[in-house]
Amino acid sequence: MDQISASRAESSEKLVYRFGDGKADGTREMKKLLGGKGANLAEMALLGLPVPPGFTITTEVCTAFYKNAHAYPAGLSQAVEEGIAHIETVTGKTFGDAVDPLLVSVRSGARASMPGMMDTVLNLGLNDESVTGLAALTGDERFAYDSYRRFIQMYANVVLQMDHSFFEDILEECKRDRGVHLDTELTAMDWRTVINGYKGAVRNHLGTEFPHDPREQLWGATDAVFRSWMNDRSRTYRRLNRIPEDWGTAVNIQAMVFGNMGETSATGVAFTRNPSNGENQIYGEFLKNAQGEDVVAGIRTPSNLTKRSRIEMGSDAPSLEECMPETYQELIGFFERLESHYRDMQDIEFTVQEGKLWLLQTRTGKRTAKAAIKIATDLCKEGIISMEEAVMRVEPESLDQLLHPSLAPSEKNVLLTRGLPASPGAAAGSVVFTADEAEEVARDGTKIILVRDDTSPEDIHGMHAAAGIVTARGGMTSHAAVVARGMGRACVSGAGEIRFAPDRKSFTVGSAVIKKGDIITIDGSTGEVFLGEIPTIPPEMSEEFETLMNWADSLRRMGIRANAETPVDARRARAFGAEGIGLCRTEHMFFDPERILAVQEMILAETQEDRTTSLSRLLDMQRLDFYELFLVMKSYPVTIRLLDPPLHEFLPQADDDIRAVARASGVDISIVYQRIKDLNEVNPMLGHRGCRLGVTYPDIYEMQVRAILEAACDTVEKTGVSIAPEIMIPLVSVKEELTMLKARIDDIAAQVFAARGRMLDYHVGTMIELPRAALVADQIAEEAEFFSFGTNDLTQTTFGLSRDDAGAFLPAYQKAKVMPEDPFVTLDRDGVGTLMRIAAEKGRATRRSIKLGLCGEHGGDPRSIDFCEMIGLDYVSCSPYRVPVARLAAAQAAIKGST
Amino acid sequence: MDQISASRAESSEKLVYRFGDGKADGTREMKKLLGGKGANLAEMALLGLPVPPGFTITTEVCTAFYKNAHAYPAGLSQAVEEGIAHIETVTGKTFGDAVDPLLVSVRSGARASMPGMMDTVLNLGLNDESVTGLAALTGDERFAYDSYRRFIQMYANVVLQMDHSFFEDILEECKRDRGVHLDTELTAMDWRTVINGYKGAVRNHLGTEFPHDPREQLWGATDAVFRSWMNDRSRTYRRLNRIPEDWGTAVNIQAMVFGNMGETSATGVAFTRNPSNGENQIYGEFLKNAQGEDVVAGIRTPSNLTKRSRIEMGSDAPSLEECMPETYQELIGFFERLESHYRDMQDIEFTVQEGKLWLLQTRTGKRTAKAAIKIATDLCKEGIISMEEAVMRVEPESLDQLLHPSLAPSEKNVLLTRGLPASPGAAAGSVVFTADEAEEVARDGTKIILVRDDTSPEDIHGMHAAAGIVTARGGMTSHAAVVARGMGRACVSGAGEIRFAPDRKSFTVGSAVIKKGDIITIDGSTGEVFLGEIPTIPPEMSEEFETLMNWADSLRRMGIRANAETPVDARRARAFGAEGIGLCRTEHMFFDPERILAVQEMILAETQEDRTTSLSRLLDMQRLDFYELFLVMKSYPVTIRLLDPPLHEFLPQADDDIRAVARASGVDISIVYQRIKDLNEVNPMLGHRGCRLGVTYPDIYEMQVRAILEAACDTVEKTGVSIAPEIMIPLVSVKEELTMLKARIDDIAAQVFAARGRMLDYHVGTMIELPRAALVADQIAEEAEFFSFGTNDLTQTTFGLSRDDAGAFLPAYQKAKVMPEDPFVTLDRDGVGTLMRIAAEKGRATRRSIKLGLCGEHGGDPRSIDFCEMIGLDYVSCSPYRVPVARLAAAQAAIKGST
Repeated sequence: MDQISASRAESSEKLVYRFGDGKADGTREMKKLLGGKGANLAEMALLGLPVPPGFTITTEVCTAFYKNAHAYPAGLSQAVEEGIAHIETVTGKTFGDAVDPLLVSVRSGARASMPGMMDTVLNLGLNDESVTGLAALTGDERFAYDSYRRFIQMYANVVLQMDHSFFEDILEECKRDRGVHLDTELTAMDWRTVINGYKGAVRNHLGTEFPHDPREQLWGATDAVFRSWMNDRSRTYRRLNRIPEDWGTAVNIQAMVFGNMGETSATGVAFTRNPSNGENQIYGEFLKNAQGEDVVAGIRTPSNLTKRSRIEMGSDAPSLEECMPETYQELIGFFERLESHYRDMQDIEFTVQEGKLWLLQTRTGKRTAKAAIKIATDLCKEGIISMEEAVMRVEPESLDQLLHPSLAPSEKNVLLTRGLPASPGAAAGSVVFTADEAEEVARDGTKIILVRDDTSPEDIHGMHAAAGIVTARGGMTSHAAVVARGMGRACVSGAGEIRFAPDRKSFTVGSAVIKKGDIITIDGSTGEVFLGEIPTIPPEMSEEFETLMNWADSLRRMGIRANAETPVDARRARAFGAEGIGLCRTEHMFFDPERILAVQEMILAETQEDRTTSLSRLLDMQRLDFYELFLVMKSYPVTIRLLDPPLHEFLPQADDDIRAVARASGVDISIVYQRIKDLNEVNPMLGHRGCRLGVTYPDIYEMQVRAILEAACDTVEKTGVSIAPEIMIPLVSVKEELTMLKARIDDIAAQVFAARGRMLDYHVGTMIELPRAALVADQIAEEAEFFSFGTNDLTQTTFGLSRDDAGAFLPAYQKAKVMPEDPFVTLDRDGVGTLMRIAAEKGRATRRSIKLGLCGEHGGDPRSIDFCEMIGLDYVSCSPYRVPVARLAAAQAAIKGST
Repeated sequence: MDQISASRAESSEKLVYRFGDGKADGTREMKKLLGGKGANLAEMALLGLPVPPGFTITTEVCTAFYKNAHAYPAGLSQAVEEGIAHIETVTGKTFGDAVDPLLVSVRSGARASMPGMMDTVLNLGLNDESVTGLAALTGDERFAYDSYRRFIQMYANVVLQMDHSFFEDILEECKRDRGVHLDTELTAMDWRTVINGYKGAVRNHLGTEFPHDPREQLWGATDAVFRSWMNDRSRTYRRLNRIPEDWGTAVNIQAMVFGNMGETSATGVAFTRNPSNGENQIYGEFLKNAQGEDVVAGIRTPSNLTKRSRIEMGSDAPSLEECMPETYQELIGFFERLESHYRDMQDIEFTVQEGKLWLLQTRTGKRTAKAAIKIATDLCKEGIISMEEAVMRVEPESLDQLLHPSLAPSEKNVLLTRGLPASPGAAAGSVVFTADEAEEVARDGTKIILVRDDTSPEDIHGMHAAAGIVTARGGMTSHAAVVARGMGRACVSGAGEIRFAPDRKSFTVGSAVIKKGDIITIDGSTGEVFLGEIPTIPPEMSEEFETLMNWADSLRRMGIRANAETPVDARRARAFGAEGIGLCRTEHMFFDPERILAVQEMILAETQEDRTTSLSRLLDMQRLDFYELFLVMKSYPVTIRLLDPPLHEFLPQADDDIRAVARASGVDISIVYQRIKDLNEVNPMLGHRGCRLGVTYPDIYEMQVRAILEAACDTVEKTGVSIAPEIMIPLVSVKEELTMLKARIDDIAAQVFAARGRMLDYHVGTMIELPRAALVADQIAEEAEFFSFGTNDLTQTTFGLSRDDAGAFLPAYQKAKVMPEDPFVTLDRDGVGTLMRIAAEKGRATRRSIKLGLCGEHGGDPRSIDFCEMIGLDYVSCSPYRVPVARLAAAQAAIKGST
């Protein structure tokens, strides 16, 4: 108790947390305060791992910064000084010293990883004096001045807001002067010339000198990192990843170590297991004589960490295992310690400075869905985590990746080029070359492949819009690869044969020219890029997937059903593990081109006789529909919703079509026009539909009920399996609707059973999709044996928001954060959810055993499923492809609910 | 306690209640069980008044009859026998006796009066034997056989379901044979011929003899009366008058007395005060030598009861006061006893049989609104009832009659004819001649006047559809007059100069010919009928009206406001007693023909500059609108709702209009078409409207807020009166909408106040018109200073029911009793009401002092107002004409709430 209050008091007072030299003020539990990076640096220090010393400015400082008009809390200045003093003590170096200068990095570090979104400044502390100390100390003047010019360039860009181009032009000019092509060909003297040019550019552009004082540099960089929390790309990323704005970022200030101090230095990133397929093999990349950012930025293609992966990749560049075997062994040891300490696959950054290994970061590694499943099931089998933990480790939404089709193998596919398998899955689409183009072209639903040299955080919106991404440069951990995996987009990275035309309107691979708008197909699981569109085949589920799903099934309480009308969909739903059909939309059966005429004739019928004829044709079709569905579903429950949409939806709008309907149905065209006019509605969503049709056109519902029950009898006679159809009445708002329609259903049932000489169980229930139905659910439950929440319509009516019309303002609402979530994607708990809770409680109060389900599109959304578990629904029903997502989400919800 | 249980036990066992001879089993408190008529007969018997003896079969028998497939409870037969024995004992006559036969009437009697809706059989007990006894006993053979033929005719019609025409034809034939024109010219022998004809008609038509056995007759009639509870006209009447079906009717079986036994016999109806204007004067009519039904049916025009009214009416026929002075004095005495006993004006039926006065019925008399007010205030002033009782005595809905315009006096009005002032108010419209025509023509809003010889219960739907009713025959208490007063329709009855053309497509008065479709104007307060359409003038309120309204105001808790936009409406609202404007719909101001162009230009503007220009023109107009409104309303609150409808409502639909708009606004027509297309919505009700416009087109709301606050400043400067405008945001569903818009309003306010050098109070609140707003009212109340329930839209969204489209199925719903009430007329308590209750509770939980009002059309509906009182709203707002209704309803709700 005392400890907790002490730590609480501390957390709101202490502004800076130190780490390094086997000690730390913080722990990994303090992510909220120190950010992920800061907490893990502290933890690694506590574990005795080699972490360059440093300190973390807390996220609370960030929050205060934004609350108080960009002013820092009192005491921060003093605390930072103590932090610097701590680094100086551990390293024995002095900040800004001309002889043995301490250089630091200044990095962001939020509670959730936001890779590349915020700013970083490296080599801070260099100036005209300390650069000479660095040169003397390292004996490498070229390295020192290269570091200094990198620092100026980065600082000017990040802190002083100057464009990269100022500095690139100066560098290019220098290389031209010297007649060289590569940076590495420039000498120390050349770098000094470049540095003078850089400083001149700052002077010309800003009218002031580049800051010389290390402390001024430090505060400038700190300020820039805090400010970058609110830059556009961070905000976009947070919106996409649902990270709250008020979390804030920490700032980590840490002694620099250098991977670019020659051939005994290196920098790299590694995953303790394969993040693409989950195999228990170390997986990573490194660059010799480079700074860490070089790997992540994808500017040079890095080498493999292990010999095994080098061989697998067919690379000639020696692996770390081969060229630095001792360092490699030490690294492997650290990996094992970190993975078993964190009990999960780690994503680790390291630097080797002149043979000495430093760890710069560890965090739980991002992974593909496939890898997540493999790692979770492996860790469970290895006894490291429990079955519940394994199930909680996989993001349900991510399963979606696994369920998308892959390319059909064929001899005829024309391989264009090959890159790295950066993010699994296959995608075909029109080529575009910029993120803006991507967003624009994709707006109308066109599938596009974004082809780039490499990607940067500015490209996120385009990657989001794309079906797949190809980059010419960069490795498996490049920006493009990491982001694509996170988004579940197929990605091929480092396809080095690609050459862009100067106008960026086409690219070539050898003699092939691909122009904007041409179709290509990519396979992110193999790294292949093909010409044209290639057919796809359904995904194959891995053994681990089945294992995890079985665990999920054993842990979940709710049933999972699918929304399906056709035998094909029903079989797919069963294959994905659906335990029934939660919503069979009978109107979908009517829209079939062969059926629609009979439906139209029924609507246009001028005599009861004509109407009865049309209905009896529909009866035969519907009976077969239901029979086929029952055959697939066997004894699994099937909930069939009677006709829902307004009748005008079945009549054509265009004059040509109207003529065709009149001809086909033998009705005078003026009558068709008149009927269309009569049926026209101002607000069809709130109109003559659902059970209102059942009340006013009783013969339609009677036909459907007869078809259901006759089909059920047929199925029982054919298979001997016992069947109890669930007949669902849509759009009920008053109990009396159900009373009347249920009585009619019972009548038809009695007729069918008498004619067939057989009695079957059947259940009559209702959609709860209008606010009033939820509010009077106690009354409705007197008639209804089950409720199914139709959350699409319930959302529309609760918000007074037409899904068809919301496009005119919902984007503005989301942008202005008036309505940050799209309520049609994720269930609105406060409004719609409250109605559901009321309905569940009232329904059960009347009929304790009433079956409660959900069949809106929210049935496939994990956060909505979580809510369904909270209010104790019996099942959710979603599209067949979302069934595995729903199974896993339901299991996680149950686990959360029971702890 | 024992008494109560005893009476309960009794009420569910005892099937028959006797009365007569100064004793009775029942009392007037037992209306539920005995019906109104039965309870009052019992009460009169207990008071010692001369009531023919009889008994009442309870309403519970009726309920059981319908529950048990038209079977009677065990024991009824025995109880009826005892009842008959009771009548025989008191009268000394014997049922079916050939010498001194007991004749009875069999009448319905429901808990609420349903005049003329159900069936009656008189003179029951006559047959070929007993008719001779009657003849001998009365010494009037003609009377006896006339009674017998009347009985056969009535019984055959009511019980045996034979059409009137069978009997009319036989009677006509007999008169032709005898060469006479009037029934009174036929002799006893003629009647015997007619009777033989009647019996033959029954035999031919039904294949059986007319029943001879009085007991068979009795059960046949009883059965018919119970069955008439469910006939079409009873059901229509109950629906219109909201009488529950399960109340059932009682059946009253009572000894016959005869008003048609010669010149010392008479029959009449009377009101203890004037039912038309409420004056404390006896008011009634009688017919000498007639049966009671003759007066009510309006077949002969009756004479006045008092000399005074005879003179007033300009009649020559002697009054009862003059021709039977002793009977008249006795009657007056009974009237006084009954009125002071019942503490209200009574409607009494009486019969004089050979000089002996009998009372057949007393009940609280129906009256016009004007009379109700006069009687209630008089009774209070006379010390008979309290102020609260007086306020409860007037049906709020009925005030509507008083508030309609009357005819402008003019020399030029062409008087067509004159009848009786049967129901007050003036109305003009197209002439129709049948109830079906009336309903059909009125469907599109055409005002019609129904002109009939007389009306019958079959005509109710046509009377309901009519603006006014004229009858050629019948008195002030005829069917037409009673029903028209109840419905608040203007009615002139007994306009005896009217002659109908044989084809019933025109009528004449003298030489004037009025055809179907011609326009006439009637004044139901004077009985005048005019040619053509006559202008009307606003109603003038009586002194008693003001008195009652003042009492109501002193008793009510809720405030009453009006929905008004124009100074004219605002002044009318004030005149009717509104205490503020609860809803000023700013869009109504935009639809003004002079404004709409500026609105259209604003919508069509291609540049921000054009848009700003249009908005600034609108600003000037709106500022003046609000200024004028504030000047009228002075310090009374004015709630102004910012723009609500979707913008497409301001753009034209027809090609011609679109061309005109393009021309007028100087915009290319293709742009107008494009903009119309862009703004088109699938479900406008759920679309881009209300505060969604405010969020996406901020300049519109900013213009409106500026106009409101500048106008408020202008008003304060002009009048010195302090003003605090209430700015209302429509269609809020999430709190953040209000947060954003309120911040903008506060900004504009700061700007206006700075520019004007003046600070004003203003309040920002919201409509609660979406289910979600009600459900998260606690959140919304963090921003909103007031809520106004927009129950029109709240009803649409709660039911998922578009008001514009409900016409396709709502009538079927009401007919099938799926939704017996139109939820747009009377607030749905279970659904919409539950949301209101939730919102009121949650709103107050956040902001204790939050002001709660209602501004939907339910604000003028008494039953909805009653609910508003129950949930403690602060005010309701309704159309100006409904303000008095709302004031009275609010007072009644408060009285009910406090008892």
